[in-house]
Amino acid sequence: MRRRQFLFGLSALAFSPRFASGIDGARLNRRLRELAPFGRTPEGGISRVAFSEADRLARELAMSWMREAGLAVGIDSAANVIGRREGRDRSLPPLLFGSHVDSVPDGGNYDGQVGSVAAIEVVQCLEETGLETLHPLEVAIFTNEENGKTGSRAMAGELEDRELALPSHGEKSIAEGISFLGGDPARIEEARRKPGEVFAFLELHVEQGAVLHRRGIDVGVVEGIVGIERWNVRVDGFANHAGTTPMDERRDALLTASRVVEAVNGIATETEGRQVATVGKIAVHPGAPNVIPGRVELTLEIRDLDMAKIAKLQGAMEVEARRIAAANDTSVSFEKYYESRGAPADDRLRDVIRSSAEDLGLSTLSLPSGAGHDAQSLALIAPMGMIFVPSVDGISHSPKELTLEADIEAGANVLLRSILAADALALG
Amino acid sequence: MRRRQFLFGLSALAFSPRFASGIDGARLNRRLRELAPFGRTPEGGISRVAFSEADRLARELAMSWMREAGLAVGIDSAANVIGRREGRDRSLPPLLFGSHVDSVPDGGNYDGQVGSVAAIEVVQCLEETGLETLHPLEVAIFTNEENGKTGSRAMAGELEDRELALPSHGEKSIAEGISFLGGDPARIEEARRKPGEVFAFLELHVEQGAVLHRRGIDVGVVEGIVGIERWNVRVDGFANHAGTTPMDERRDALLTASRVVEAVNGIATETEGRQVATVGKIAVHPGAPNVIPGRVELTLEIRDLDMAKIAKLQGAMEVEARRIAAANDTSVSFEKYYESRGAPADDRLRDVIRSSAEDLGLSTLSLPSGAGHDAQSLALIAPMGMIFVPSVDGISHSPKELTLEADIEAGANVLLRSILAADALALG
Repeated sequence: MRRRQFLFGLSALAFSPRFASGIDGARLNRRLRELAPFGRTPEGGISRVAFSEADRLARELAMSWMREAGLAVGIDSAANVIGRREGRDRSLPPLLFGSHVDSVPDGGNYDGQVGSVAAIEVVQCLEETGLETLHPLEVAIFTNEENGKTGSRAMAGELEDRELALPSHGEKSIAEGISFLGGDPARIEEARRKPGEVFAFLELHVEQGAVLHRRGIDVGVVEGIVGIERWNVRVDGFANHAGTTPMDERRDALLTASRVVEAVNGIATETEGRQVATVGKIAVHPGAPNVIPGRVELTLEIRDLDMAKIAKLQGAMEVEARRIAAANDTSVSFEKYYESRGAPADDRLRDVIRSSAEDLGLSTLSLPSGAGHDAQSLALIAPMGMIFVPSVDGISHSPKELTLEADIEAGANVLLRSILAADALALG
Repeated sequence: MRRRQFLFGLSALAFSPRFASGIDGARLNRRLRELAPFGRTPEGGISRVAFSEADRLARELAMSWMREAGLAVGIDSAANVIGRREGRDRSLPPLLFGSHVDSVPDGGNYDGQVGSVAAIEVVQCLEETGLETLHPLEVAIFTNEENGKTGSRAMAGELEDRELALPSHGEKSIAEGISFLGGDPARIEEARRKPGEVFAFLELHVEQGAVLHRRGIDVGVVEGIVGIERWNVRVDGFANHAGTTPMDERRDALLTASRVVEAVNGIATETEGRQVATVGKIAVHPGAPNVIPGRVELTLEIRDLDMAKIAKLQGAMEVEARRIAAANDTSVSFEKYYESRGAPADDRLRDVIRSSAEDLGLSTLSLPSGAGHDAQSLALIAPMGMIFVPSVDGISHSPKELTLEADIEAGANVLLRSILAADALALG
């Protein structure tokens, strides 16, 4: 049944004389270049942190393109930009898609921006093709993705009141930033959409990893956004004089910590699956060349689609760390301080994305998203699907971030086809 | 021949009716307690950094005890306190002994102080016994041992002019501090003694390690003061997103560094000998829980009596580090930034110390000094010998530093006998 609807969607496209060429890749890539000056850095990247003037101006430009694409543009109370195009049945919940245009400090020109501009381009293509969908379409440019996913989490009802008072990257609080962009923090609840109020959510995004690029794959079909847990790990030994303490009388916390780093890597690497585990931060006390380290603090981060697997991996790492610490006459303790639950993509939307890519003659690979995205918030209230396009060398959050124009065009065409196919699905 | 002279020295003692009891242990330990208030900290240790008022007052008290012991007291141009007692032959170079009374910030009541007060006690014992030595005796309390061995290095002609302008722990420069204590930095050269101008140098000191205490040994016969070399080690990998970079595509600088720490420990532990190697400091860049470390800097310190062995050990560590780094698709480099050459003790003085201890029924152990001492400077211009007494649990540079009264008394008696035996040696 689903398959037939899918074919129906595509056959509708086939009737359109202008659709053969799909979206306008030249326009899409030109608009990405036109967005680049807002917050441009000397290195050629952007520092377009949320709530900055550069962020506001980039959104203004995107809104002008939305209007050009025939969308009715508004800003919700969380300052998300929403452009709406009615469908054949106005009583249906909208099919939502989009991304963000804010960046990290010293970021690049593709993260968020590719998905945002492509979403507009898809609607403009439908408009110019004269194609109408069953569901209303809504294009979203979410507020402050990079520093807390403020807009998408408000839409999912996940934003906590206390967060509004937090500082943002700039001088403004989150609340002040929302007001600055045209939202209304006092009425933040109005941005919330309940389960069922969004038919489906789709997001095109650059991979930010090197898997697609290294393997020469055109399109990534995202299995879901991985869950993340983080622990503070503390190793206690005994600080002592590096000259007067023989090797066999040492209780060296850094030696234990080094063995723990090795064990974390070993368990993460040898276990079947695509989990990742990282020790990214380490501090040694007292931290002098001539003092045996008495205490080491390090962070452990584990990511996987399956939260139970994260717990199992951490359990194995802690058991091994305790064995290592005891053998070295030291002790170790783990304290979890952060958890972000994983968000699986909807199986039917994954099928839609894969089929859409294959119909375009593009190669695909299923892979988890190791990074967080607005889609993670939307997955809480709607079926979610994500399309990845390759990041050259996997570089991201850097001025060197790059996705090739042909890949952007291909990704936008997959988004177009996926939207039309999803529109015909019986989800929910 | 040496042995006969040694016996002569002891036989002279045996004729003294008061010598049976040796030095006055009660007086010695009482004086150590009387020194403790100068710079006392709430934790019961001392912060008697060189050139502080507490340092000056502690030296004043020691000078009063020197005069009580019959010493002619002066302050040389490097502010070393020198107390002199003539011998039978005034033309001979003096037999010098002593230590220091300054401390590290938050130090303890034994480091330096035991050797200084015991040196005075030894002379007072000789004075009260009526024993005259062949060589003149000089008791030294050296200036600023803890922050650069200023006084003893000036005596050895090793102090560089530029050091005088350096800041000390307090507000004064080294030069200002020397003046404050009664020296004359403009005439620092006058403190210098050339080889041959000191007959021998002996120093009693607390071990600052746990070797004697753990093994229940009374007296350590110091083989020499170890040489120290330090390197900055840099590991370069590639910083990347901890979520989007699979385990097998990582170039994790901290993983390499951890394996280097393990290798350093392994080589230092498995090689025959008493060398020590320490990684005491480590810095990870960028140092965030969600970023794979791209660069790690760490320090490597190796200590041994034999500089050639230090070089050989470091060579083996660097070869292994390069192998580890290459296997992990990272690179490593070593840069030496510090070297302090070792100072071997004089074999004849080691014999004298060992025999003196054994004659007193004390157990002895030969061991290197892993820490630096004024004796290291004096070894450059004179035969040098050092006597260690046990540090409880090896704790030092801490308010918890402790050497038992009985051990201090025993050590002072070994110093007394060693001085008399050395006095009879034909050194040079």
